[in-house]
Amino acid sequence: MAINATAIVSSKASIGSNVSIGDFTIILDNVVIGDNVSIQSHCLIGQPTPLSDGKPLIIGNDSLIRSHSIFYEGSQFGSKLMTGHRVTVREKIEAGDNFQIGTLCDLQGHAKIGNYVRFHSSVHIGQHSIIDDFVRVYPYTVLTNDPHPPSNLVLGVKVNKYAIIATMCCILPGVQIGEKAIVGAGSLVRKDVEPETLVAGVPAKYICRASEIILKDGTNQPAYPWMRHFHRGYPKEITDEWLSIYDT
Amino acid sequence: MAINATAIVSSKASIGSNVSIGDFTIILDNVVIGDNVSIQSHCLIGQPTPLSDGKPLIIGNDSLIRSHSIFYEGSQFGSKLMTGHRVTVREKIEAGDNFQIGTLCDLQGHAKIGNYVRFHSSVHIGQHSIIDDFVRVYPYTVLTNDPHPPSNLVLGVKVNKYAIIATMCCILPGVQIGEKAIVGAGSLVRKDVEPETLVAGVPAKYICRASEIILKDGTNQPAYPWMRHFHRGYPKEITDEWLSIYDT
Amino acid sequence: MAINATAIVSSKASIGSNVSIGDFTIILDNVVIGDNVSIQSHCLIGQPTPLSDGKPLIIGNDSLIRSHSIFYEGSQFGSKLMTGHRVTVREKIEAGDNFQIGTLCDLQGHAKIGNYVRFHSSVHIGQHSIIDDFVRVYPYTVLTNDPHPPSNLVLGVKVNKYAIIATMCCILPGVQIGEKAIVGAGSLVRKDVEPETLVAGVPAKYICRASEIILKDGTNQPAYPWMRHFHRGYPKEITDEWLSIYDT
Repeated sequence: MAINATAIVSSKASIGSNVSIGDFTIILDNVVIGDNVSIQSHCLIGQPTPLSDGKPLIIGNDSLIRSHSIFYEGSQFGSKLMTGHRVTVREKIEAGDNFQIGTLCDLQGHAKIGNYVRFHSSVHIGQHSIIDDFVRVYPYTVLTNDPHPPSNLVLGVKVNKYAIIATMCCILPGVQIGEKAIVGAGSLVRKDVEPETLVAGVPAKYICRASEIILKDGTNQPAYPWMRHFHRGYPKEITDEWLSIYDT
Repeated sequence: MAINATAIVSSKASIGSNVSIGDFTIILDNVVIGDNVSIQSHCLIGQPTPLSDGKPLIIGNDSLIRSHSIFYEGSQFGSKLMTGHRVTVREKIEAGDNFQIGTLCDLQGHAKIGNYVRFHSSVHIGQHSIIDDFVRVYPYTVLTNDPHPPSNLVLGVKVNKYAIIATMCCILPGVQIGEKAIVGAGSLVRKDVEPETLVAGVPAKYICRASEIILKDGTNQPAYPWMRHFHRGYPKEITDEWLSIYDT
Repeated sequence: MAINATAIVSSKASIGSNVSIGDFTIILDNVVIGDNVSIQSHCLIGQPTPLSDGKPLIIGNDSLIRSHSIFYEGSQFGSKLMTGHRVTVREKIEAGDNFQIGTLCDLQGHAKIGNYVRFHSSVHIGQHSIIDDFVRVYPYTVLTNDPHPPSNLVLGVKVNKYAIIATMCCILPGVQIGEKAIVGAGSLVRKDVEPETLVAGVPAKYICRASEIILKDGTNQPAYPWMRHFHRGYPKEITDEWLSIYDT
C-alpha cells in the first residue's frame, strides 16, 4: 500500500493489497476497495447518504480513480473501473467490469451499467437509467428521467448494447435506444430509436440504416457496426470475437 | 463547532454556532457563516475579488455546502442554502431562503435569486439574471446575457415565479420567462415566454397552454401547475397553501 | 516565493521568482513555472502521462491558475495565462500569450491555441483543434473531432482569427470557422463557415453578413467586427491598433 501522508483513510474502510491513495484524498468508513487500485489526489470516497440503505461503496480490482472525484457509498463497480477527473458518482449504481467514466461526468445514482461501457467527458446520467454492454456516450449528453418536471414519475432511459450517443444529445424520459443504433450529435430524442439505425435532429428523426454510413477515411467501408474497425481500449479476447464476426 | 484538523479557517471569519467544516477546506477572511451550517471537504469559501466592493460572503443558518465548492466574497444567501458538489458561485448574488444549487452549477454573480429556487446539476447563470421564487431549472441549461458577444451590453434573463426550464435549454439575453411557464428540454429561447404556456424547439415556439399537458402517471390529471401534485422537498406550510389553492 | 504550508511542491519542479502556491496544491516533477505566477488552492499541476513524450508542463510568466485546476505535463503556455476554477488541461497543447480558460473548461490536449484566445466557462476542446488569435468561445460549446464515433479518424476543428462561437454550440469534426465569422447560440455546425458571416440553427445555416448585425445599445452601429467597440481585457497596444483600423 502507498497511502500518501496527507490522505485521510478510515480504519473502518476495507482496502485491498497494492492500493495507492493520493494526497488530500479522503476515504470514509463504508468503502470496500479491491486490489491494485489507484485513487489520485483530492478525492472524496464513500460519502454517506441515507439513500444507500447502508450498503458500502465497492470498487473492483485494478481500478483507477482520477483526481478530484467524488463517490458516494452504496454503489458497486466491477474490476477495471477507470475514471477521468472530478467525476461525481452517487449511490445505488450497479456497474459491470471495465467501466470508463470521463472527466466531469455526473452520475445521479440508481442506475444499471453493463460491461465495457464508456462515458466521455461531461455525461449526465439521470436516475433509473439502464445502460447495456459496450455502449458509448459522448460529451455533454444528458439522459433525463422526468416526463413533466417536476413530477413524482421517473422514467429512466434504456440504452441497448453497442449503441452510440454522440455529443450534446438530450434523451427524453423513458426512451429506448436500440442495439447498435446511433444518435447523431446535437439531437433531442423523444421517441424510441430502432436498432441499427441513425437518428438525428431536434427532434431526432430517422436518417438511414446505420450500415449506410461510410467511413471518411478513404476505405469506402461502412462506419457501423463500429466494432468491425474500432478496437482501441478493448482487450484482445473481445476484439478477436468482433473480428471473427465482421471480418469474413 | 467541529472544524476538522486539516481545515484552514481564518480567525477573521465570523462563524456561527454548531458549524462543521470538512477536511482540506479553506475559509478566508471576509465570510459570515450562520448557525448549524455544514461545509464539506475541499471547499474554498470567501475567495476575494475587487468586484465585491469589500462586502462579505454571507451564508444563512441551517445551510449545507457540499464538497469541492467555491464561493466568492460579496454574495449573500438566506437560510437553508443547500448545494451539490463543486458549485462555483461568484460575487454579488443576493439569494433568498431555501436555495438549492446542484452539482457543477456555475453562478457568474451579479444576480437576484428568490426563495425556494432549485437549480439541478450543471446550470450556468449569467450575470444580471433575475430568478423569482419557486423557479426550477434543469441540467445543462444556460441563462445568457450578451446579445451580440462580445459587447458591453448586458441584458439579463428574468424568470418569473414557478416557471420551469427543462434540461439543456439556452435562454437568450433579455428574455422574460412568464410565471408558471414551461420551457421544454433542448430549447433555444429567443423571445419572451407567456405565463402558463409551454414553449419548445430551436428556436422555441408556443406549443400549448401549460394546463393542457397531462400527467403520464395514469391519473389523467394536468401536469401543470406542478404545485398541485409535486411537493417533495418543500415544507408543509408551503405545500398546505398549494393544496388549498389547487385541491378544490 | 510564497508557498503555503500545506502545498506539496516537488524539488524537481522549476519554479520562477515571485510565485505563489495555494494550500492543498500539488506541483509534480516535470513542471516549469515562470515568474510572477499565482497558482491557487487544491490544484494538481504536472500530472504525468505517457502521451507527453516526457515533455514538461510550461507555464509562462505573469500567469494565474485558479483553484481546483488540473494541468498535465507536456503542454506549453505563453505569458499571462489566466484560468477560471477547476479547468482540466491535458498534454500537448501549445498556446500563445494571454490565453484565458474559463471555469470548468475541459481541454483534451493535442491542440494549437493562438494569442489572446478566450474560452468562457464549460468549453470542451477536442484533440487536434486549432484555434487562432483573438477567437472567443462561449459556455457549453464543444469542438468535436471524430466524424463517426468511435473511429480511428481524428478531424480537428479549425477556428480562424477573431471568430466568435456563441453559447451551447456543437462544432462537428473537420469544420473550419472563417475569420471574423459568428456562430449563433445553440447551433450545430456541420459545414465550413465563411469569413465575416453569421450562421445559426440546427443544422447551422447562413443568416447574414456579420456586418449587418446592429448593436442593441441604441447607437445603430454594427455589432461586428466586434473589435471596433469591445476592448475590455485587451491591452492598449492591441485596442489602439483596432481603433486605427475601425474608427475612421
